[in-house]
Amino acid sequence: MRWSDGFIAVDWGSTNRRGYLVDGSGKCAGEFEDGEGMLSVPPGGFPAAVAQIREKLGDKPLLLAGMVGSNRGWVEAPYIPCPASLDQLIEKLVRPSDREAIVPGIADSSGERADVMRGEEVQLFGGIAAGLLDPDSLVCHPGTHNKWVTLRRGRIEHFRTVMTGELFSVLKDHSILADLLRGKVALGDAFSAGVRLGLSSQDLPAELFSVRARVLLGKAREEDAASFTSGLLIGTDVRIGLSYPTSAQVTVIGRPELTQLYAAAIRDANRPVCEVDGERCFIAGAAAIAEKLS
Amino acid sequence: MRWSDGFIAVDWGSTNRRGYLVDGSGKCAGEFEDGEGMLSVPPGGFPAAVAQIREKLGDKPLLLAGMVGSNRGWVEAPYIPCPASLDQLIEKLVRPSDREAIVPGIADSSGERADVMRGEEVQLFGGIAAGLLDPDSLVCHPGTHNKWVTLRRGRIEHFRTVMTGELFSVLKDHSILADLLRGKVALGDAFSAGVRLGLSSQDLPAELFSVRARVLLGKAREEDAASFTSGLLIGTDVRIGLSYPTSAQVTVIGRPELTQLYAAAIRDANRPVCEVDGERCFIAGAAAIAEKLS
Repeated sequence: MRWSDGFIAVDWGSTNRRGYLVDGSGKCAGEFEDGEGMLSVPPGGFPAAVAQIREKLGDKPLLLAGMVGSNRGWVEAPYIPCPASLDQLIEKLVRPSDREAIVPGIADSSGERADVMRGEEVQLFGGIAAGLLDPDSLVCHPGTHNKWVTLRRGRIEHFRTVMTGELFSVLKDHSILADLLRGKVALGDAFSAGVRLGLSSQDLPAELFSVRARVLLGKAREEDAASFTSGLLIGTDVRIGLSYPTSAQVTVIGRPELTQLYAAAIRDANRPVCEVDGERCFIAGAAAIAEKLS
Repeated sequence: MRWSDGFIAVDWGSTNRRGYLVDGSGKCAGEFEDGEGMLSVPPGGFPAAVAQIREKLGDKPLLLAGMVGSNRGWVEAPYIPCPASLDQLIEKLVRPSDREAIVPGIADSSGERADVMRGEEVQLFGGIAAGLLDPDSLVCHPGTHNKWVTLRRGRIEHFRTVMTGELFSVLKDHSILADLLRGKVALGDAFSAGVRLGLSSQDLPAELFSVRARVLLGKAREEDAASFTSGLLIGTDVRIGLSYPTSAQVTVIGRPELTQLYAAAIRDANRPVCEVDGERCFIAGAAAIAEKLS
C-alpha cells in the first residue's frame, strides 16, 4: 500500500469532516462528509474513527488535516511558525504510522501577533501548486473563522483570523437577534446595505443592536434582517482584512456559497477579486504533500 | 388603596424581575428578585404573574417597567420618541386598571438612528429627580445591553445601545472561547490590557479570536482570558460611547459590580467618571411617577 497508488485526504474539523479518495493521478475518485468532527470523538475513540474513514473510502494511506492535529485531537501536530513553506509543513508532518500523516497547523506570533490556523494551510499550498493562487497575494478564506492570509513567494507570511462565521452563528442561535436571523442570507440590497455599514462603521456591537431596533421602529423589514446582518459582519471583516498593506487583487477561497458573499463585499470595497473553490485546492494540496511521502 | 399610601415598583425584564415596595415617603420597605421574566410567562399568564407580585409584597398599586410593556409583554405600552421628558412618560402610561400602570419605552429614531430602551428610563428620570444625575450630561447604563444616554435639560435627548453584556454572555456559553471565559472577571492588569485594546482597536471580531490564539501560543495566561475579554468588550463599548459630542463628565448608573468595570474603562479613556446605584435611581423614578397617579 504505497501513497503514490492513491490515498485518502481528510479535512477533519471541530464539528465536521470531509474525506476525499485521491487516485494515483491526483484526481478525486470518491468522497464523503459527515458530522464526526473532532469534538464528537470520545476519549480513546480516534482509532475507531480513523478505521471508519477507511470503511467509507477504502484501505488506503490517510492524510489528516485540521483540528484532528490539535491538542484535543488524535495526535498533536504542533504549530509551525510563519513564514511557513510547503516543504516545512511536510517536514513537520506527524506520523502515527507509515500509513497515516497528520498535517501541523501554522502559527503567526511575530511581535504582537497571535493567530493560528489548522486545515486552511493545505488549501493555500494546494492553490499555489495548482496555479489557482498567486504566490504573492492576499487571500481571504471564509468559514467559521475567516482567515486573511498574505502569501509571499509561495510562503504563508502572515495571517489574521476574524470570527465572523461563528459570531453570526451564536447571534442566530442564542441572542436577542435570533428570531430575526432565521431567514435565508442572500445577495441583494439588504446584504449590500449591511456591507456598506460594516465597511464604514467601527461600532459593530452597537450596529448589531440597531438591527432589531430598526425592525421594531419600522425602518427595516424583518425579512431583510438576516442578509443585512450577514452583510454587516462580512463588511466589518473585509474592512479589517483590507487594512493589510499588500497587492490590490484579492482571492477568496472556500465553499462557493460563502466565497460569493465575501467577493461581493470586497467588490463593494472597490478591490478586484476572484473566487477559487476550496475543495479543489484541498485535494491539490493533499496531493502535493502525498507526493513526498512513502 | 391609594398610590400615595405606598405602591410596588417592578423592573420586569426579559429574564428577571425585581420588585420594590415603596412606602408613602418614597422609601423602600421590602423587595424581591426572581427569574419570572417576561419570556417565562405563558400565554394568558400575566394576571397570575401580577397577582404573584402582590402575594410577595402586599396588595398595593403596581408600577411596571421594562419588557413587560413590550409587544410580547402583558399590555403593550408603545415607545415614546426622543427627546423624552418625565412628564411625557407619565402622560403615556398604560393603565390596565386604576391599580396598575405600565411605563412606555423610549425610541430614538431621528435621522439614521434606530434605538429603543425599556426600563432604563425610570432609572434615568429617577436619578435626575433624586439629584444623582446632572440633567445635562452623558450617562452610561451597563447591563445586557449597555445604553449611552445624552441628557439635556432633564430630557432623554439621544441614546445608543451597545450589546456588550449579551456578546460576552453568548461567547462564554456558546463559542470557541467558552472554556476560556468561565473564569471570574475582575479589575486588574488583564482587564486593563483588554480595555486599552478595545479603546484603540477597531477590529473586535479579530481581537476576539486572538484571545484564544494568545493562550495557545503561550503569550497570555488562560486564567486572565475572562477579564481580558471583558475589558476588550467594555473598552470597545466605551470607545463607541465617548464618540458622543458632549460634556466631559460621565456618570455610570447600574449594578455596582458592572458600574465599577465601566468606570475603570472610562477612567482609562481619560474621562472623569462617577458611579450611581441603579436600584436607588429606579425607586426614586418610580416614586416620581407614582406621585402623579391616583
